[in-house]
Amino acid sequence: MYEVIQGGVTAAKGFMAASTAAGIKYKNRPDMAMIYSTVPCRAAGTFTTNLVKAAPVKWDKNQVTGGADAQAVIVNAGIANACTGKEGMDYCARTAAAAAESLDIKADSVLVASTGVIGMQLPMDRIEAGIRAMAPELKGSLESGTKASKAIMTTDTKHKEAAVQVVLGGMPVTIGGMCKGSGMIHPNMCTMLSFITTDAAISKELLQEALSEDIKDTYNMISVDGDTSTNDTVLLLANGLAGNPEITEKNEDYKAFCEALNYINETLAKKMAGDGEGCTALFEVKIKGAQTKEQAKILAKSVITSSLTKAAVFGHDANWGRILCAMGYSGADFDPEQVDLYFESAAGKLQIIKDGVAVEYSEEQATKILSQQEVTAIADIKMGTAEAVAWGCDLTFDYVKINADYRS
Amino acid sequence: MYEVIQGGVTAAKGFMAASTAAGIKYKNRPDMAMIYSTVPCRAAGTFTTNLVKAAPVKWDKNQVTGGADAQAVIVNAGIANACTGKEGMDYCARTAAAAAESLDIKADSVLVASTGVIGMQLPMDRIEAGIRAMAPELKGSLESGTKASKAIMTTDTKHKEAAVQVVLGGMPVTIGGMCKGSGMIHPNMCTMLSFITTDAAISKELLQEALSEDIKDTYNMISVDGDTSTNDTVLLLANGLAGNPEITEKNEDYKAFCEALNYINETLAKKMAGDGEGCTALFEVKIKGAQTKEQAKILAKSVITSSLTKAAVFGHDANWGRILCAMGYSGADFDPEQVDLYFESAAGKLQIIKDGVAVEYSEEQATKILSQQEVTAIADIKMGTAEAVAWGCDLTFDYVKINADYRS
Repeated sequence: MYEVIQGGVTAAKGFMAASTAAGIKYKNRPDMAMIYSTVPCRAAGTFTTNLVKAAPVKWDKNQVTGGADAQAVIVNAGIANACTGKEGMDYCARTAAAAAESLDIKADSVLVASTGVIGMQLPMDRIEAGIRAMAPELKGSLESGTKASKAIMTTDTKHKEAAVQVVLGGMPVTIGGMCKGSGMIHPNMCTMLSFITTDAAISKELLQEALSEDIKDTYNMISVDGDTSTNDTVLLLANGLAGNPEITEKNEDYKAFCEALNYINETLAKKMAGDGEGCTALFEVKIKGAQTKEQAKILAKSVITSSLTKAAVFGHDANWGRILCAMGYSGADFDPEQVDLYFESAAGKLQIIKDGVAVEYSEEQATKILSQQEVTAIADIKMGTAEAVAWGCDLTFDYVKINADYRS
Repeated sequence: MYEVIQGGVTAAKGFMAASTAAGIKYKNRPDMAMIYSTVPCRAAGTFTTNLVKAAPVKWDKNQVTGGADAQAVIVNAGIANACTGKEGMDYCARTAAAAAESLDIKADSVLVASTGVIGMQLPMDRIEAGIRAMAPELKGSLESGTKASKAIMTTDTKHKEAAVQVVLGGMPVTIGGMCKGSGMIHPNMCTMLSFITTDAAISKELLQEALSEDIKDTYNMISVDGDTSTNDTVLLLANGLAGNPEITEKNEDYKAFCEALNYINETLAKKMAGDGEGCTALFEVKIKGAQTKEQAKILAKSVITSSLTKAAVFGHDANWGRILCAMGYSGADFDPEQVDLYFESAAGKLQIIKDGVAVEYSEEQATKILSQQEVTAIADIKMGTAEAVAWGCDLTFDYVKINADYRS
């Protein structure tokens, strides 16, 4: 049980944000953000499984697993600080040192995150100037959180925030977050960049476990283009200011916290998929009747990752053969001649396949259903009761345009 | 040692071909082809590993593994005869029966292949009429082979043939083939449709082994869009008319035959990759310095499959970070900080990365190299001596256009 509320990273008690146009690579737009908590936070994080890890991923992973409390996160857009060697690692340390000085906190309580072009070095003078500019501008208003969510965008067309409130031990606890996409999105551990803040009091171990479990059904179930980034990072900071009895075991409060966290993560993940580079539609795939959840997940991800299926969604074309084809090469076992398939959207629901072959359906109605901004394909493989959902988007001319010359 | 010669499926002794405009789905163009051998052939085949297998794949697999000789292949373009249930299987039998009657051969010596839209039933009356029209038109000329290679095209922009001659036991032996792409190409067993004919005398066991081994380095190393088709089929027919001493063991003749076969398969595979849907360039990726060939293959395939890398090739953009990123998420182990990377084409060769970080290189020269019709990226991971090559193509506006509304 939770209530959806307005806001993002500044929704929870004690969290503040700021942003600035530091001129790192973009011109005339904010490209740096700072998240700050008035008191130290327990931090949980999940990071890319790509062997090629960006410097800030290595930095944060070390800080989070090392057990240090976190009090600030410095984020820049435009340059990813990936494939930058020792120099890139030094820049993480210098960023943390600059933030520590400006905020009068410990350097090892500063987390960093970068997104953008791989292989370029950060302009450290502008990063340091950006930090000095942001520190005095920190505010706890919802507006400052929204501004921060805009400053971390790259090819995103919309900023992405979510917040909920849940009552734990009689006290209202808030969880809020922001994230950004929107290319190189195929998280194998977590998504591009997502920052969640909460005023919940919860042990570091359970905070990490709640996050690690939840990303499997949220960020790890979205794909824009099948490319797992070098920078994928989800950070979850908990400062305990809500005053709820500290969660130290898997009790009812833990379950309620996890449920609220799941809302934030799923909402942000869907926002990322629905704002994939160049996309015109959120494409949701539900697999029903699976024997295991793992089987359902493999099938669902295979369909949302298929370029041919994605192009068909863009064309509002009920090309169901491509969906069956993508299920067939997924590696998961099922009987193609048992599959029922449906398309569903705000315009209605239509059965397309029964027992592996097409039923008599109206192409006109199918096109109408597929012309909505959120489209769902539901495949029932009739083997059991497990289910999974994955989220992707269509493949469009604009995806190609954006990526054929991203660096210029 | 082999000599490249003109021709395709009719280059080898005793092989004839015909084609016709049967009006299956395309209008005003040939869409059916027939390959015929004057004497029965030993047949080898490799087929899609997609769980969803088209009816002709099931038919051919049964015939080829059952051990029956083959004497004719009937191919249609436009409709894939996949996801067509029992009716689709019946149509394979009816196609074979019609060909057997027209050609006065046994029905179990007829192989069938289809390519096109999934889920539609074949118009059997037109298929049967097409067979009756083609049978009297069979010719052994190279021109008839070329016409057949044009009749099986779907979104291909070029027909694809190759032929070689090799001397075995003092006798000239010919191997020729044709194939078609060009979407849903990510063979996991073999490619979309490829038909190889040879007059070599070789045992059925060694014929199958030669094919099964060779596809691992040829068709299985190309990808246009990461979608493994329901119809992938490679057929290799050997009628023994060259008069060479029959190859029954892995001797020098077998090695020479395999080398010549590899030329045909690699040539056809590259033609498919270079004519991928909407593509403007063949993109070749070489991994050097691997510990094992398998490791090199995984890395090479990951790079050619990356949508972001493919879009960068389309944009002539030396976005090397995406190549390292795709290697990083491939699942193969390597040290990102040991990688050297080069781009090479007819316009020259340029080192981009040394030990995982960018060297000072000319973006202008890189763009010039990437603007050619065949572009190679070479990554040296400095762990051993194994190598692998994979072939793909760029991701373009036209790929999206073709696939957003393929069925209409």
